[in-house]
Amino acid sequence: MIQTGILGASGYAGAELARILLSHPEPMRLHLSSVSFEGQSLDAVYPSFRAPGDTIMAAPGLMLENADAVIEASDVLFSCLPHGHAEAAAERCLAKGGLFIDISADFRFGDDEATYAAWYGKSYAQPALHASAVYGLPELNREAIRKARIIGNPGCYPTSAELGLYPVLKAGIADPDSIVIDSASGLTGAGREPAQSSHYADCADTISPYKVGAHRHQPEIDRYLSIMAGKPISSVFTPHLAPMNRGIVSTIYFRFEKTMDAKALHALYASFYADEPFVRVLPPGSTASSRNVKYSNYCDISVHISSNGKTGIVVSTIDNMVKGAAGQAVQNMNLALGLDETAGLMMVPPAF
Amino acid sequence: MIQTGILGASGYAGAELARILLSHPEPMRLHLSSVSFEGQSLDAVYPSFRAPGDTIMAAPGLMLENADAVIEASDVLFSCLPHGHAEAAAERCLAKGGLFIDISADFRFGDDEATYAAWYGKSYAQPALHASAVYGLPELNREAIRKARIIGNPGCYPTSAELGLYPVLKAGIADPDSIVIDSASGLTGAGREPAQSSHYADCADTISPYKVGAHRHQPEIDRYLSIMAGKPISSVFTPHLAPMNRGIVSTIYFRFEKTMDAKALHALYASFYADEPFVRVLPPGSTASSRNVKYSNYCDISVHISSNGKTGIVVSTIDNMVKGAAGQAVQNMNLALGLDETAGLMMVPPAF
Amino acid sequence: MIQTGILGASGYAGAELARILLSHPEPMRLHLSSVSFEGQSLDAVYPSFRAPGDTIMAAPGLMLENADAVIEASDVLFSCLPHGHAEAAAERCLAKGGLFIDISADFRFGDDEATYAAWYGKSYAQPALHASAVYGLPELNREAIRKARIIGNPGCYPTSAELGLYPVLKAGIADPDSIVIDSASGLTGAGREPAQSSHYADCADTISPYKVGAHRHQPEIDRYLSIMAGKPISSVFTPHLAPMNRGIVSTIYFRFEKTMDAKALHALYASFYADEPFVRVLPPGSTASSRNVKYSNYCDISVHISSNGKTGIVVSTIDNMVKGAAGQAVQNMNLALGLDETAGLMMVPPAF
Amino acid sequence: MIQTGILGASGYAGAELARILLSHPEPMRLHLSSVSFEGQSLDAVYPSFRAPGDTIMAAPGLMLENADAVIEASDVLFSCLPHGHAEAAAERCLAKGGLFIDISADFRFGDDEATYAAWYGKSYAQPALHASAVYGLPELNREAIRKARIIGNPGCYPTSAELGLYPVLKAGIADPDSIVIDSASGLTGAGREPAQSSHYADCADTISPYKVGAHRHQPEIDRYLSIMAGKPISSVFTPHLAPMNRGIVSTIYFRFEKTMDAKALHALYASFYADEPFVRVLPPGSTASSRNVKYSNYCDISVHISSNGKTGIVVSTIDNMVKGAAGQAVQNMNLALGLDETAGLMMVPPAF
Repeated sequence: MIQTGILGASGYAGAELARILLSHPEPMRLHLSSVSFEGQSLDAVYPSFRAPGDTIMAAPGLMLENADAVIEASDVLFSCLPHGHAEAAAERCLAKGGLFIDISADFRFGDDEATYAAWYGKSYAQPALHASAVYGLPELNREAIRKARIIGNPGCYPTSAELGLYPVLKAGIADPDSIVIDSASGLTGAGREPAQSSHYADCADTISPYKVGAHRHQPEIDRYLSIMAGKPISSVFTPHLAPMNRGIVSTIYFRFEKTMDAKALHALYASFYADEPFVRVLPPGSTASSRNVKYSNYCDISVHISSNGKTGIVVSTIDNMVKGAAGQAVQNMNLALGLDETAGLMMVPPAF
Repeated sequence: MIQTGILGASGYAGAELARILLSHPEPMRLHLSSVSFEGQSLDAVYPSFRAPGDTIMAAPGLMLENADAVIEASDVLFSCLPHGHAEAAAERCLAKGGLFIDISADFRFGDDEATYAAWYGKSYAQPALHASAVYGLPELNREAIRKARIIGNPGCYPTSAELGLYPVLKAGIADPDSIVIDSASGLTGAGREPAQSSHYADCADTISPYKVGAHRHQPEIDRYLSIMAGKPISSVFTPHLAPMNRGIVSTIYFRFEKTMDAKALHALYASFYADEPFVRVLPPGSTASSRNVKYSNYCDISVHISSNGKTGIVVSTIDNMVKGAAGQAVQNMNLALGLDETAGLMMVPPAF
Repeated sequence: MIQTGILGASGYAGAELARILLSHPEPMRLHLSSVSFEGQSLDAVYPSFRAPGDTIMAAPGLMLENADAVIEASDVLFSCLPHGHAEAAAERCLAKGGLFIDISADFRFGDDEATYAAWYGKSYAQPALHASAVYGLPELNREAIRKARIIGNPGCYPTSAELGLYPVLKAGIADPDSIVIDSASGLTGAGREPAQSSHYADCADTISPYKVGAHRHQPEIDRYLSIMAGKPISSVFTPHLAPMNRGIVSTIYFRFEKTMDAKALHALYASFYADEPFVRVLPPGSTASSRNVKYSNYCDISVHISSNGKTGIVVSTIDNMVKGAAGQAVQNMNLALGLDETAGLMMVPPAF
Repeated sequence: MIQTGILGASGYAGAELARILLSHPEPMRLHLSSVSFEGQSLDAVYPSFRAPGDTIMAAPGLMLENADAVIEASDVLFSCLPHGHAEAAAERCLAKGGLFIDISADFRFGDDEATYAAWYGKSYAQPALHASAVYGLPELNREAIRKARIIGNPGCYPTSAELGLYPVLKAGIADPDSIVIDSASGLTGAGREPAQSSHYADCADTISPYKVGAHRHQPEIDRYLSIMAGKPISSVFTPHLAPMNRGIVSTIYFRFEKTMDAKALHALYASFYADEPFVRVLPPGSTASSRNVKYSNYCDISVHISSNGKTGIVVSTIDNMVKGAAGQAVQNMNLALGLDETAGLMMVPPAF
């Protein structure tokens, strides 16, 4: 039985992890921590978790404990703490031979401490941990993830952008100066903490771009696009808040270095992702929409050509809480533990 | 391996049934019919069902066939056809020894053909079928369902109303002339067919009562409230369309025949539903909300007293597509086949 | 030129008042106060108010000042402060001969200090002010409002409930023990301050009853229903949060003391409100919906009979920010200043 | 008194025109036509238009007549008919000395019949009418509009895109091959007719790109961007459906021909639009959002620079039904009739 811990289980990513792991086929015992709700059960924070029978949820794994207890008890430790808190937990987890999967940005920048420091305002306390960390995008790093002990789970926007661009970057057919990533996210991406920007009357019935030219996912995206391309890529990424609970839709633009028709572009993507269990390249003529991936670990991709024939347009969509956070973290866990990569993740997304 | 058929699989109830059955642990082969989309695959109608690998979904069970083929092939047959089409299918299903579960209203009125005819504009062609049909509300009819061959699955509003009132009706503490059921439903309740009343710009950002004093679920509700109470009940039921995809919230009012305090009322409900796997009576002080039951088979119930102490107020909420349709149908199938009642239905509802 | 002040102009009611008054035909100078945003302009809080030309909005009336300055400058003073702050401002306003219109609950309870104290946790410091205050529901108190110097503007839920019931209470045809008021409100009713219950991901795509049996509008409703009926009325009121920005829909139930048909009930309402400029009784067969009154001062009412013929059902809907707050306050101002009652309020609500 | 006609008044653009014109200060008599609802009053289609007093709306101008009667009666004629129907109406209007303002695409392409024919599948029956038509974007063509007799009102997406790009195109600072226009629209843009793509359950809680590389507004946008730039521009435009009623948000990207800092870019826009009554260039640091322009004729624009400094990012947002259709049409009418350009259009947009 796997002893599985979630640090920060009362936040959205932590709660979603708990939800997915509760249906995971591998025998597992959950240990959950929360600073704000220590001593309460998870269903006190999220009543959807309540067990039937009018009782307080009895499963001890759904009690919210302190972080120390969870770290001690766990062989697999997911950290859903805010940026800047992962190093200490990772060190303790590794010391007892565990697997550490970080949902924050702390382990996404490898040896590029300068970029991390510039965008997150913190330097590395333990550079060695970062040197061994693997970026947890299975479609890019599957073999390395199998051997990893520290996994930096990708950001939500970066997951959609990177999966949308990997085939063209690998094929070298895009003008590297031309890449535009225009993304919209549902409000769960803003987390559980109330704020003016997530206040219903402020964000319902409207689209609001935010942090234009200044979002922290820009350097993460550029880092991995560059790795995928094998040369420096400097893209332009703009996030928008959209009035929906879940979902990221990234509409991605790149100029062709030489012209390519729609059929060839589709064939490139279809072939590239033919064996991926969670990437669905839609048939020609279809357009990806976030409603088809909600509550699933899928990334749906559709490919298009601009009417003037010079620009490729790729729509890449995920559920920000699943493939963009908790689901991908479980996919990484499955790989690192040698389980079936899709275990616990083959839910059919609801059609409506 | 169970041969399972869904007539009308391209409608919302049918597609939701397919989604639930695809995750059912019992070995099962699906046969789907559709008039409008015969010859296409289910994912052509609902791209959420697409299998990864950029292929047309290969599972033959997800091809939409004609109804005859599905009836022939199935041992368990779910009918999601419009009202008035179930008798013929039921007869053929029973003739080959099958189990027939009808999502429409056709088998909900037993020997009360007059009421069915008055509200649905059709008389019974085969009264004997109706005599043997069981109303598929497991909390009311569990033992009969185990032996049934024809099951009339309850309507969505009736499920929430009847579960909300059963304890007080059984206890005989409510003034039978005082019952008001005020319900709001998400738009999936209106089905897949576009209409002015489900046009986004007409129904977003607004609450619209409809069919006030004239909804077909009124006689179904009254029939089963009367059975629960053991005496005639004539309630007042008003449905509203609410700008949400899923969920029914019924706020139910009844005058106490003798005064009762909040604690006693809660104890009555908690005790009544203590062993039910899909009814969650919330702790005192909590209020049920549709967001905690979405995409699950739960019915959440909270109980309250009016500020003047004379009226009981019960909030009963379900996912209209799951406990209000497809999930309850699977619960009925599990009972009638002698499987674990909760098989395939223990999904934890997402917290957000 | 009227010197018009708004205390608490950075809250939702205050900002909506500013919006309406900016289009009021009477020459007027606005004075706005805010504790949190003193020294800033209103468009810094609500960018919708920005004037074209890329300048800081120059109109001095749209600068947010301190409350003292606004009270001093104003002949008409609207108070949008939280409950418990109106008495002091009212006293100063009256001392300089002004008109005071309070959006909070402070002046709604007249001589019934006990009820106010029980529900709002405060006693009256100056009972004489309350004795002279008039409840600002023009359809009930038009003549008194014309002479009033202190007006207690009604609550949003009470406005919809009281207008929905006034005709039957006046006619004495409802069983006074049978009244149920089931209301849904949009999220602007929760005000500008972020909170968990108004966090987008918590309240989108769901209906949530709240404060069941315990909402502060219950005693206000009962007070005025009793005045309308000429005898004590103790109703049952339940509020719900609905995923929409604006609008209140109250579905109201009452048992007939003697049976009444739909035609007679409609005639009663149509006749009762025939001369009211802001109450629209819909034709028989129509059902009121909040979408038809948004951004207007209208109250739409439709009347129905339950299918068993024993209960009247009235749907009464308003825009909670307009007829439920700022618009009604302007209607009261118009009356008290001897202006055309409809001045500045005849906006046609958008159809979508 | 102006005799003003609206052909197709039961569609969304027509109804919004009626709403705006009912508050227009110029004495005016409305004549409305509808094919589907001839003989009914406008409030039978849109109950928001109902007059108080429980009567059928008496104003004869709000009865829906046939098109012939409206054309005969009108001096100013707005056509909200589907594409392909404007020529005949324009001819009759001009013959009697009237002003013709077309909301469809029929008069947007001037002498470029080939492009119109390629995208709309129809050739010109009367080329002379097109030669005299003026494209009704006042910020581009104000003086010509003053003298026009036929005005082709711009499309909704084109209005937002063209206003967002005009300053940089005029200044010649953008790489003409680099322009990407990524737009999201509310559902009212899809019109009143129910369809699968505007069915609530299909489009709520999701973002769906559509007609990628193939939307009819692409050639209109390119035609006017080229006129603004004084050289051929071939942009890339992608529309998305967003779950909101109103609003278009266009996020626009262009590579700088020579680098430009944020301050200079802002100064360019602020100066360019300094005297425009309906374009609001936001202060540096602010980001435009559709919620601040809803129900108004404003276009809000914010300007930004990508984090790598090489790309300008402009957010341009309008209400698709107002500045994107009916409001702009009234602005054009005001200009062509020699009225105050802002008459009837200075509504303050609601803050929430």
